[in-house]
Amino acid sequence: MSLGAMKFETLKPVKAAQLIAQRVRDAVLSGELAVGDRLPTEKELIKQLGYSRAVVREGLRLLESDGLIHLQAGRNGGAVISSPNTERLVSSLNTILRLQSTTVAEVHEAQRLIEPLVIQLACDRATVEDIAAVRRTIELIEENPGDKDLVLEQSNRFHTLLGEAAHNNVMAIITTLMREVVIQMAYSGDAAEALTIARIHRRILDAVEARDVKAATRRALRHLDATECVMTTREPAVADATVVPLGRRKAASTARVAVAKD
Amino acid sequence: MSLGAMKFETLKPVKAAQLIAQRVRDAVLSGELAVGDRLPTEKELIKQLGYSRAVVREGLRLLESDGLIHLQAGRNGGAVISSPNTERLVSSLNTILRLQSTTVAEVHEAQRLIEPLVIQLACDRATVEDIAAVRRTIELIEENPGDKDLVLEQSNRFHTLLGEAAHNNVMAIITTLMREVVIQMAYSGDAAEALTIARIHRRILDAVEARDVKAATRRALRHLDATECVMTTREPAVADATVVPLGRRKAASTARVAVAKD
Repeated sequence: MSLGAMKFETLKPVKAAQLIAQRVRDAVLSGELAVGDRLPTEKELIKQLGYSRAVVREGLRLLESDGLIHLQAGRNGGAVISSPNTERLVSSLNTILRLQSTTVAEVHEAQRLIEPLVIQLACDRATVEDIAAVRRTIELIEENPGDKDLVLEQSNRFHTLLGEAAHNNVMAIITTLMREVVIQMAYSGDAAEALTIARIHRRILDAVEARDVKAATRRALRHLDATECVMTTREPAVADATVVPLGRRKAASTARVAVAKD
Repeated sequence: MSLGAMKFETLKPVKAAQLIAQRVRDAVLSGELAVGDRLPTEKELIKQLGYSRAVVREGLRLLESDGLIHLQAGRNGGAVISSPNTERLVSSLNTILRLQSTTVAEVHEAQRLIEPLVIQLACDRATVEDIAAVRRTIELIEENPGDKDLVLEQSNRFHTLLGEAAHNNVMAIITTLMREVVIQMAYSGDAAEALTIARIHRRILDAVEARDVKAATRRALRHLDATECVMTTREPAVADATVVPLGRRKAASTARVAVAKD
């Protein structure tokens, strides 16, 4: 049986399933359903919507793959509305950029252009609470410089929270997307390097807290450039080619987190 | 039957399907498969991958919903690798921004920050061919000012192509995402308004062609501000609230395309 012949059979249920997914999506977007709310049981959905079990399940799968519901196991389990994270978004964006043969240089250029905007907004708007939350990511690295996973996680969190301190959801999400898309350096993981990262982050944050846009921007761009420089000199094959898809970043790169002097 | 009970049954095939989808995605990203290439028939996939027909079909569906394949009907039909467009990306981004209660003002602010960057790059890098392609969108509006669909399409295309003239895939895609996310004005559709749009676009393009960054930026920002101003004054409910999801834009807004004097 060819895929051509298959098409007619499978496209109809997919479309019905998409209608179900859209209906739930609309309910969430209109505020009718909120994060944490439960969807009716599968049985009820079949009755309410008038679709077959296969179609209802497919609809739930689409919602799950969008991150708009998660399925809880157990006696009181079921589909619960959740807030979609940016993971799927990053994956799509990555695929599109990769297919367009986007170079590391292009990603770096875009980061250089957008980073100062975020820094400027954060310098204007960061609250005491924002600064405290960003500072906590630095302290966690300083307290656990030998915990490689923690260092990488908190290092990413530093940039995400700085984006949130800009108090513009659109700029924050663009910052996160750019950061996730760019090749993540597999950093060597030794404590000395972790403490260097903490030091650089602290200097950027100090400038933001002091509302010193110039110093904050200069330090953030140097941090970015040093990283780019390390990547392009140590990983010529990667740098010449295209953005490495998310799933392979760890294997593909052996570059170390850049150490920038300011 | 509750969704909790359902979970155990359905999650396994979904994961296997996701593995298949990932395998095809990797093949595309590594260049093993290119846009236009055909996947093996369903029968062959079942044999090669060792999964059931249901799992293989589910994997193909995931790829189709990602836009990475399209299924062609007919005797020589089947799954063909295609380049994913940004539609799905916009839909996810829209959902996330909406759930974060992003305001129109935030979207507008981000656009105001990013537009000058794109204009600057386009002024530096737009080729003769880029300028000609952008100009064609203006001419099409001038030649068909009464064709509402064409006017809206070419008006969007003007901005997309200007983003591409920046010759940075990342900036171009951010431009497209921002444009798609923002509430699209349901423009009145009369020929006079279409010609006004064409005139504004032409003035922006003239400045880009003359490499006059200041004039191009000023004109583009006025175009943006006038649009925002019309939206917030005519549509207070929408402007105060959050980003309207894509699917409802036409119904939700009756604002007209802004007319900016420069």
